[in-house]
Amino acid sequence: MRVAVIGGGAGGMSCASRVRALKPEWKVSVFEATNFVSHAPCGIPYVVEGLSETSKLMYYPPSVFIEKRGIDLHMNSKVIDVKRGSLTYIEDGEEKEMEWDYLLFATGASPSLPPVDGVELEGIFTVDLPPDAERLKMAAEKAGEVVIVGSGYIGLEMAEAISARGKKVTVIEMLNHPLPNFDADIAEIVKIEMEKKVNLRLNERVEAFDGKDGVERVLTDKGEYRADMVVVATGVKPNVELAEKLGLKLGETGAIWTDSRMKTSMENVYAAGDCAETRHMISGKRVWIPLAPPGNKMGYVAGVNISGGDIEFPGVLGTQITKFYDLEIGRTGLNEVEAKEAGFDPISTFIKAQTRVHYYPGGKETRIKVVADRGTKRILGAQIVGYDSVLARIDTMAAVIQAGFTTKDLFFADLAYAPPFAPTWEPLVVAARTLKF
Amino acid sequence: MRVAVIGGGAGGMSCASRVRALKPEWKVSVFEATNFVSHAPCGIPYVVEGLSETSKLMYYPPSVFIEKRGIDLHMNSKVIDVKRGSLTYIEDGEEKEMEWDYLLFATGASPSLPPVDGVELEGIFTVDLPPDAERLKMAAEKAGEVVIVGSGYIGLEMAEAISARGKKVTVIEMLNHPLPNFDADIAEIVKIEMEKKVNLRLNERVEAFDGKDGVERVLTDKGEYRADMVVVATGVKPNVELAEKLGLKLGETGAIWTDSRMKTSMENVYAAGDCAETRHMISGKRVWIPLAPPGNKMGYVAGVNISGGDIEFPGVLGTQITKFYDLEIGRTGLNEVEAKEAGFDPISTFIKAQTRVHYYPGGKETRIKVVADRGTKRILGAQIVGYDSVLARIDTMAAVIQAGFTTKDLFFADLAYAPPFAPTWEPLVVAARTLKF
Repeated sequence: MRVAVIGGGAGGMSCASRVRALKPEWKVSVFEATNFVSHAPCGIPYVVEGLSETSKLMYYPPSVFIEKRGIDLHMNSKVIDVKRGSLTYIEDGEEKEMEWDYLLFATGASPSLPPVDGVELEGIFTVDLPPDAERLKMAAEKAGEVVIVGSGYIGLEMAEAISARGKKVTVIEMLNHPLPNFDADIAEIVKIEMEKKVNLRLNERVEAFDGKDGVERVLTDKGEYRADMVVVATGVKPNVELAEKLGLKLGETGAIWTDSRMKTSMENVYAAGDCAETRHMISGKRVWIPLAPPGNKMGYVAGVNISGGDIEFPGVLGTQITKFYDLEIGRTGLNEVEAKEAGFDPISTFIKAQTRVHYYPGGKETRIKVVADRGTKRILGAQIVGYDSVLARIDTMAAVIQAGFTTKDLFFADLAYAPPFAPTWEPLVVAARTLKF
Repeated sequence: MRVAVIGGGAGGMSCASRVRALKPEWKVSVFEATNFVSHAPCGIPYVVEGLSETSKLMYYPPSVFIEKRGIDLHMNSKVIDVKRGSLTYIEDGEEKEMEWDYLLFATGASPSLPPVDGVELEGIFTVDLPPDAERLKMAAEKAGEVVIVGSGYIGLEMAEAISARGKKVTVIEMLNHPLPNFDADIAEIVKIEMEKKVNLRLNERVEAFDGKDGVERVLTDKGEYRADMVVVATGVKPNVELAEKLGLKLGETGAIWTDSRMKTSMENVYAAGDCAETRHMISGKRVWIPLAPPGNKMGYVAGVNISGGDIEFPGVLGTQITKFYDLEIGRTGLNEVEAKEAGFDPISTFIKAQTRVHYYPGGKETRIKVVADRGTKRILGAQIVGYDSVLARIDTMAAVIQAGFTTKDLFFADLAYAPPFAPTWEPLVVAARTLKF
C-alpha cells in the first residue's frame, strides 16, 4: 500500500511514523513545502526574544524520519493538485506525480490577514513557520517602534519577545480585554501586567497600514502609531484549498470535516492537525482549535486507522498555556462565555490564592476562575493566571474536566500538599468549595 | 446542642468551623493540649533549616476561631477521660467536665519510637508538634554530627534541613532504598541525590543508642556512628487511647474505625484527621495515611454530618509530595508493590523526560513511573521524581486516578503545552502510550 501525507508538521509526521511502525512493508511518502519537518512554530517568539535559535525549531531532524523510520520524505516539495488515487507535486522545479491508496491531509493553518489597506507593505509580518523566525528577529533588532495587532497567544508572546529586546511596543486589540479566549474578569490581570511593559490599546481597530518604502504608521479608528515593524497576530485559518479541490466536505468551522477516526468525507482520505475539525469534549460541538498536542494525537489516530486499526479521537478541551514575562496564563475547557454559547447555565468562582503555605518563602499569587454547570455542578472550565504553578493547576483541571468531575469530586480530589509546593487547602479545592455541591 | 472536639489540629478545627457555620446557635468546644491550634507540623523541617519560624506554624491564630467563628477554644487543655455524654479535661491545673451531644476525635498521631536501648537519652528527638521546632533547631545548631533514623518524608526533610546547615548527617534506613512507600527503581534516583549530601546507610538497622549525659553513639547491626543529635523518623501511630477508653472500635490499621460519613462505631461520635481510618479510593481497602489535606476534609465531612447534613468522604489516594534540595518527589495512588498487595496484576512504565521542549532553556530531567492494571488498563498509581514540575504531574495523575482513567484516556488527556512549560509530547501522555491501550 502507498500512503501519501501532505504536510510534514506535527500531524503529518505523527501519522507517517505510526503507519511505518504498524505496517513496515507499506510505502509512506510525506510532502513538505518547507525545509523543516516536525516544525516547532511555537518556538518562533523565543527565537525572536533571543532565547533560542531557528535551527533548533524541529523536534526531530529529517534523518530520524528517513533513516530510522523509513519514511519517503520529500522536503521543499509542494503538492499542487490532488485527485482520487493520485497527487501532483513540484520538486526541484519539476512536476511529479504519485499514486496513493491512502491520503492524509496535514496541511496546517496559516495566519489570516485583516482586509485593510497597506497590509502587503514591507515590514509587516505574521508568525507562521520556523523560517519566519530569523526574519522576525532581524526586523525586531533593527526596529525602534513596533506595533503588534492582536493580543491572543501569539500577539502576547511576540509582545514579550520584542519588548524584552528593549523596543517600544504597542499592542492593538479590538476587544475590551487581551486574550480573546479568556473571560474579561480574569484577563484583567493580564491587562495590568501588559500595561507595565507595552502600550496596550483596547477597543481599537486597525484601519490601515501606511508608509513609503515599508510600513511607517498604523492607522486605527482612534489614532495613529509610528511603526518600523508590525506583527499581525489576528488569528489563523485552516489550509483547505487542496482539500476543497479534491471535493472533501468542510465542517461548519471551515476546517476539513473529520469523523472521530479522523476520516474525511471521502473513503481512504484522512485529515489531522491544524487543518482538521474535531469536537469539543465538553460541549460536544464541532470545533477547530489548532494546537500541537492534539495535532500529534490526531496524526497518531489517523495512522492507526489507516493501518487497519480502530481508534477514536475523543476531541479536545482547548487547553492552552502561555506566559507574559513572569505571569503564567492558562485555560482549559469552556470559559463562561463559551459555556453559555454551548447551552449550559454556568456558575463561576474567581479566587485569589497563594501558591505555597504562608510560612514557606517564595509563594506567589495566583487567580483561579472555575466555571461549572448550575444544575449538575459539573465542572466545565478553568482559567488560571498567576506567577507560579499554573501548569500544575491547568493540567489537573484538564483531567478533572475530561473526567466529568462535579464540584464535589474536585473538592475531594486528593491533591498533593507540602509547604514548598502548595497550601494545605489547595486553591482548586477551595474553588470547588466556593462553587458549592 | 453541645459539640466537643478533642484536638485542635487540621481535622478538629475544620470540623469545629463547619459546625459553627452551619449551626451558629450550637456550642462548639475544642480542647487542644498545646498552645497551638490549626498546627502546621509539616513546617517543622523548614524552621530547622532556617527558612521559617516556629511562631508562623499556625494556619490561623486562635483569635480567628474564637472571635470570627465563635468557637469555645480551650488551649493548653488536656482531655483525660471521655464517657458517653461527657468528658473530663485539665485546664489551669484544674480538672473540669463538659457534657456533649456530639463528640469528634481529632487526636492526631504521634511519632512511634523503636524499642531499643537508650531511646530515652537526651539529644534524641522526634518530629511531632510545632513546639518541637525550636528545640530541634537549637540542637541542630549546636550539633556537629547528626544521625537520622528513617528515610521517609520526615527523615528526608530533616536530612535536608540539617545538612543544609553544614552538619555532617548520616541517614540510617533498614530497607534497601530510601522512601519506603516508593518502588525501589524510582527511589534509586532519590538515593543518588541523597548520597551527594549525606551519608546514606541502607539495609541497616539501629540496635541501640548510647551515651553518658546524652546520646553520643548510634549502634546498628553493621556499625557505629558518632552523634551529637539523633532524629528518629521511623513512623507515626494514631492517638487512640481515649477512643479505646470510650469503647470505640479500632480498624484493622489500628486507627479509629470510621464509616464514610466519619462516624465511629458509637452513635454521635465522629473521628477525623490523623487518628482516623478511612478507605483507599483505588484498592477499596481500609487504610490509615495521616496527611493534612485529607484530615481537613474529614473534619469538614464530620462537621457537615454532625450538623445534620449528609456527605460522604470518598477516601484517599495517598498523594504526597516533598523535596530533597532541588529534587522534587511525588506519588499518588498505588505503587507497584501496593498494587500487587491490593490484588491487581500491575504493569508499569518508567520513563525519563525533559520538562520543556529541547529548544527552550531551563528544561529539567524528570522520571515518571506509572502503574496500571494489566487487564483493564486502568491507571493505578504514579511516582515522579525530577527537578521541575513534579507537582503538575502528580496532581494531574491524582485526578486521572480518582477518575478511573485507562491508559487510553490518559493518552488523550488534553494537557497544556507551550515551550516554557512542557514538551509537545507531554511525558504523562508518553507514559500512557508506552503502557499500550
